[in-house]
Amino acid sequence: MNQIDLMKELHVQSDKKIVMLVLDGLGGLPGPSGKTELEEARTPNMDRLCRQAVCGLSTPITPGITPGSGPGHLGLFGYDPLEYTIGRGVLEALGIGLTLRPTSIAARGNFCTLDPQTGVITDRRAGRIPTSKCAELVAKLRAITLEGVDITVEPVKDYRFALILDGEGLEDGVTETDPQKTGLRPLEVRPLTERSRKTASLLNAWIGKAFEVLKNESPANGCTLRGIAKDPGLPSYREVYGLNACAIATYPMYKGLARLVGMDVLEAGDTIASEIETLKSAWDRYDFFFFHVKKTDSAGEDGDFDAKVRVIEETDAVLPELLALKPSVLIITGDHSTPASMKSHSWHELPVLFVADNIRPDGVTEFGERACMAGGLGHLRHTDLMPLAMAHADRLTKYGA
Amino acid sequence: MNQIDLMKELHVQSDKKIVMLVLDGLGGLPGPSGKTELEEARTPNMDRLCRQAVCGLSTPITPGITPGSGPGHLGLFGYDPLEYTIGRGVLEALGIGLTLRPTSIAARGNFCTLDPQTGVITDRRAGRIPTSKCAELVAKLRAITLEGVDITVEPVKDYRFALILDGEGLEDGVTETDPQKTGLRPLEVRPLTERSRKTASLLNAWIGKAFEVLKNESPANGCTLRGIAKDPGLPSYREVYGLNACAIATYPMYKGLARLVGMDVLEAGDTIASEIETLKSAWDRYDFFFFHVKKTDSAGEDGDFDAKVRVIEETDAVLPELLALKPSVLIITGDHSTPASMKSHSWHELPVLFVADNIRPDGVTEFGERACMAGGLGHLRHTDLMPLAMAHADRLTKYGA
Repeated sequence: MNQIDLMKELHVQSDKKIVMLVLDGLGGLPGPSGKTELEEARTPNMDRLCRQAVCGLSTPITPGITPGSGPGHLGLFGYDPLEYTIGRGVLEALGIGLTLRPTSIAARGNFCTLDPQTGVITDRRAGRIPTSKCAELVAKLRAITLEGVDITVEPVKDYRFALILDGEGLEDGVTETDPQKTGLRPLEVRPLTERSRKTASLLNAWIGKAFEVLKNESPANGCTLRGIAKDPGLPSYREVYGLNACAIATYPMYKGLARLVGMDVLEAGDTIASEIETLKSAWDRYDFFFFHVKKTDSAGEDGDFDAKVRVIEETDAVLPELLALKPSVLIITGDHSTPASMKSHSWHELPVLFVADNIRPDGVTEFGERACMAGGLGHLRHTDLMPLAMAHADRLTKYGA
Repeated sequence: MNQIDLMKELHVQSDKKIVMLVLDGLGGLPGPSGKTELEEARTPNMDRLCRQAVCGLSTPITPGITPGSGPGHLGLFGYDPLEYTIGRGVLEALGIGLTLRPTSIAARGNFCTLDPQTGVITDRRAGRIPTSKCAELVAKLRAITLEGVDITVEPVKDYRFALILDGEGLEDGVTETDPQKTGLRPLEVRPLTERSRKTASLLNAWIGKAFEVLKNESPANGCTLRGIAKDPGLPSYREVYGLNACAIATYPMYKGLARLVGMDVLEAGDTIASEIETLKSAWDRYDFFFFHVKKTDSAGEDGDFDAKVRVIEETDAVLPELLALKPSVLIITGDHSTPASMKSHSWHELPVLFVADNIRPDGVTEFGERACMAGGLGHLRHTDLMPLAMAHADRLTKYGA
């Protein structure tokens, strides 16, 4: 039995509330001072919490594997990211705030440059055209219609756009059109199953019309489609955990990911302060709160050690307001590490601070990567966190007699 | 998705080199002084490395399971030993330096004693005849021919020999002939699938002729065949990891295991010193180096605590030469424990010393089983080591967007 089925079977109701505070890209590596971003940050509230908490280190996927945002969050939400996957087209759409319906199929589009004579791709990214140019071309592509489907095209960034077709009979299981190198023509969309024939044929029809629209443009006189996928249809938080769950996040990607597992997405402004206000006003209405802080990751990606320290400190500063709500279970961790020294996501374990009744306190007295090495939770996987949260919220019954 | 498929999907190229230094049977138990062999050994170089490394303890298979050499190394190489198995006949052949082709089938042979009247086995090991006698009988068995197949018979040790048939249409999936107790006749080889009929019939024909050859011998007037198997066809290091890998080992078994995963096996002499020379001369030509030290295990099997300490010290002494090559990732560990006090392989975890960029240093300052209990890697499995090595060598891309 996989964990999702186990949770479906064992969950029961209680009035205890769970808060999962995710500092995106929280984990770090030693900076110039020899301390990590979290170790360097002054976090008196988290450190105080450590003394009544149990700590540990959590691997997002498996050792050595660096997760994207999708798999990192699926793990935190308790869905094994190697078993439950989200197509790239879906993530691209979620990232710009588009909503998918069960009848939608989404693709990531790239504008490219084609040789006008031969039709082969000479630049897979059309000279990395600016987002403004991308928006202008997308506006022209919106004129394309296909019978029986609604079409959404939205600019993303630079040469990237999102395409969504919505209608009956659209199915996963078609190939991409990017040949992955220059000197070749864009490929046709091919169906991989009988059921995806209609999708392939509609996408090829759209591409044909798009090439007509773009043919006199320069440098973006063509496009390719990648990661063509549907909403993966994940079992919802209500179904799996019996939880009435909401998401408090400032960026579209994380709102979208939360929506995929059936969380209500609340209007939360664009600062940690406004997120806390949202949390307070929604407190009585939900059992589970996914609270997402984005800018730890952004600072890490920028290689800005000090900015990442500041975001951690800013989060620490609002903790008393969160604690005043008296959550029964509070987990503080991240979806993946983003060490400023690497300027990218990484595979390193995440420090975990776990506060609840019925924990076994350990000797950890400050929240940091190395302090957590000695934590009572030891080394776990992200998918372990939700079952632990559920247990400590009196929301799981016994397995077997 | 299993780990091998994940590695196939995520690996990318870099110029960073990985060294896996395997001290066979490294793990130990406290001896008379209360220290283990590794704790007792003076290892100034390993201890110094610990201060810039992250340490941990690794379980070869799963807790409590004692591995043979095959599964122990498969784990280190990143192939789950419970999923990927190597037949005993194949290991026996590799252990004496025989090479298998994709068309070969190998068996482990045991000379036995048959009652001349009834044909039942009276001694399954023919009184443990000496290796010299085994070689003499094998020389006689070499006279046996079968149409359409090449036959190799080689003495192994005492009453054991290796048999290889090589030809078209030979397949796995046949039963053994050893009835596992005395008082019964040797069994026939039976095919378990339609495709293995030919193999069974050829092996039965060989056995019939062998019994004719041996009938007037004493005490070895018969034989049985066990572990009849083909090369398991493991995906290669190049395919799985994109690594150009080589093996530096002094014993046939480990060269053979490395060959099964597609490593080049280098001529490495028969001492640690000659192995280091081989490493230096091959440095520019490979990305991955499996460096095997055998005699820690041999000393452990002999129950010779002090000899095992000396081999560890001898290995420590050559470390500066290895470090001078500046490997990007260096892992020092063993395939399994062989505590001198047990005189055998055991299930105990292996101390792991992991040196690379982008590690989170821990507080471990000497390389030993108990020091590693507090290591930052915590408790891992052997199969975790290759993904971690790949990540730290910048050879894995992100999983998911």
